[in-house]
Amino acid sequence: MTTREILCLNVGSSSLKFALYRMSDEAEALLASGVVERLGQPDGRFWLGSPHGETLADMSGEFPEHRAAVRQVFDSLEKHGFSAPDAVGHRLVHGGPDHTGPQRIDASLLAALRRLIPLAPLHLPSELEVIAAVAAHFPDLPQAACFDTAFHRTMPELAQRLPLPRDLWGEGLRRYGFHGLSYEYVVSVLGAAARRRTIIGHLGNGASLVAIQHGRPMDTTMGLTPIGGVIMGTRSGDLDPGVLLYLLREKGYDACRLEHLVNEQSGLRGISGTAADMKTLLARREQDPRAREAVASFCYSVRKHIGALATVLGGVETLVFTGGIGERAAPVRWEICEGLEHLGVRLDPSQNSQHAATISAVHSACTVRVIPTKEDLMIARHTRAVLSSGPTR
Amino acid sequence: MTTREILCLNVGSSSLKFALYRMSDEAEALLASGVVERLGQPDGRFWLGSPHGETLADMSGEFPEHRAAVRQVFDSLEKHGFSAPDAVGHRLVHGGPDHTGPQRIDASLLAALRRLIPLAPLHLPSELEVIAAVAAHFPDLPQAACFDTAFHRTMPELAQRLPLPRDLWGEGLRRYGFHGLSYEYVVSVLGAAARRRTIIGHLGNGASLVAIQHGRPMDTTMGLTPIGGVIMGTRSGDLDPGVLLYLLREKGYDACRLEHLVNEQSGLRGISGTAADMKTLLARREQDPRAREAVASFCYSVRKHIGALATVLGGVETLVFTGGIGERAAPVRWEICEGLEHLGVRLDPSQNSQHAATISAVHSACTVRVIPTKEDLMIARHTRAVLSSGPTR
Repeated sequence: MTTREILCLNVGSSSLKFALYRMSDEAEALLASGVVERLGQPDGRFWLGSPHGETLADMSGEFPEHRAAVRQVFDSLEKHGFSAPDAVGHRLVHGGPDHTGPQRIDASLLAALRRLIPLAPLHLPSELEVIAAVAAHFPDLPQAACFDTAFHRTMPELAQRLPLPRDLWGEGLRRYGFHGLSYEYVVSVLGAAARRRTIIGHLGNGASLVAIQHGRPMDTTMGLTPIGGVIMGTRSGDLDPGVLLYLLREKGYDACRLEHLVNEQSGLRGISGTAADMKTLLARREQDPRAREAVASFCYSVRKHIGALATVLGGVETLVFTGGIGERAAPVRWEICEGLEHLGVRLDPSQNSQHAATISAVHSACTVRVIPTKEDLMIARHTRAVLSSGPTR
Repeated sequence: MTTREILCLNVGSSSLKFALYRMSDEAEALLASGVVERLGQPDGRFWLGSPHGETLADMSGEFPEHRAAVRQVFDSLEKHGFSAPDAVGHRLVHGGPDHTGPQRIDASLLAALRRLIPLAPLHLPSELEVIAAVAAHFPDLPQAACFDTAFHRTMPELAQRLPLPRDLWGEGLRRYGFHGLSYEYVVSVLGAAARRRTIIGHLGNGASLVAIQHGRPMDTTMGLTPIGGVIMGTRSGDLDPGVLLYLLREKGYDACRLEHLVNEQSGLRGISGTAADMKTLLARREQDPRAREAVASFCYSVRKHIGALATVLGGVETLVFTGGIGERAAPVRWEICEGLEHLGVRLDPSQNSQHAATISAVHSACTVRVIPTKEDLMIARHTRAVLSSGPTR
């Protein structure tokens, strides 16, 4: 495969993150990365940085929508001397049941993705808007879609099946799982170790875990949507459905208010009553019992899900932490692993506090690792492979 | 305490089960038991049996509502030579946050229970109707309320807290847990063994598990309502809230249809497409792949929850099966425990197939037991104790 420069785009609800990679058979080099923040607000911001974190550009401005943000990214990269990318790769949150790997974007894929909007109404529309914006500026630039659900499509059907009537499975209601690009990257770093019984926790504002055996996903915590699974920054994770029925019936909630509740007002934010951000809560928890409860609830929830996933594998030989919290919150890793001694997990306190590559104690039966994730690099790899493989599949 | 004859009443949505006990300091004797089935339908049935299962009465008839069923129970017991009971004990599904033990029923308790109806709108109204029917027939007969949630009220707050905004906790939205009378009975049978790390699975049409340490509940699978937790006969158990949001938004469900779905059409019935009953599914699963999937999903769900609860205890030394499935479905117990070897669980196939009192292998690190539950006996004990303790608390 030839060398390609690939721009990776990662759309948030009010932000656009980007990273430019030079990909060849010999090397994978990050050239630049950045973010457009607070889209649609008067105090928007654009930041562009070098691979070493030096700021190349940092400016305020108003970016009315994702289209304006895309324009800004391309213009700024050109202005700073980067050549135009050979392709653009996108992270798409949902690929539904049929999109089991990265794909080159064309009219028929776009039509298929529009039909998936009901599965991810909060995310897919702005992701499709960004694809359209790139196409409008550069009609001939190849684009690829990399799905966060694709990695999980080889999970056993038993793990994908929700306990609902069969006709809803037929309509696409199943456990999709998310954070697939992150898991795929971590599995690539693990290499042969991923053949063993492995649990990976991608713990960030969104958080999920996956059970891996023989390099393949066996089960994961998120469900139809990224609201399910463990407790998160603002999301509830799985709930007794009776809670939602109670709120609908007795408190007069409608779907919109329910979604706001379980997606924006629950999890760490709901329990602490103040902050959704783990760093803030850790700093406050000595003084604020509610912050302490929020941190404890998160660790408790993750620990229970590790126990559940361990039964899927019949034990766990490798436990990996990744994502913002997983990579940087040593006290959270410690608290999660306290209570997992019966699974053979023992941390080395010093290695853990240094965020070392291996944080388990020498005599720990289960190896515990910290692997910084690189979802953008995974997008760049996929995009290069899709372009090299020729016609759309 | 003096000898008392206590009638225990257990209200279902369209049935009324009863059991008459003679309780003294020396002995607890079941005198008779029975059921009124298909209330409100033309083909109702009344059955009364001896403690050895002999039929004393079996008649068809129409019992328009719970009031008629209560009359039938009292009339039939009198006709068959049983003396009038000294007291009536009721199983009440929900006691809310404040009812932490059995209580003698009086006007103020009834008023408090009516305020709890929103927490259990499917069950509490008919339970209150039965209490009123008894009072109407026998105004002076003492009655006691035994709550299925009371046992769990000493769980750590961490386990009771749902990942929702704090004001909803203040309004009573928490993990209550159910099957408390069953767990309390099993703990009484375990005696000193319940001081060790114990998981009890009450597996029937409704199913839940509890983690016990030092005889105290530490966590349980059901939540605000009995719809949460593991997959059940017709109930979904916990779900990604995004599933309910999808159905509300994209499929036009309202609260009533959602409740019917997650309460009546999900679980084993939903996955099999045919039956909610484990016995039927086990008989069919050789021929019917959907029945096989339903059984496998149930075992998978229970196994994962055992793994989760084991992390709460830091391991498990005793695992108890009870409830209709737990006591009688040997293949289900076997399939649940396959995959729990890493927790030290090993069954003895022969003991398991005989539903022996201890079904773990001799070298199993975790003792696995089958303990037939007796919720009615627990109601009789509580009722006797409440009457003896004098005034209402």
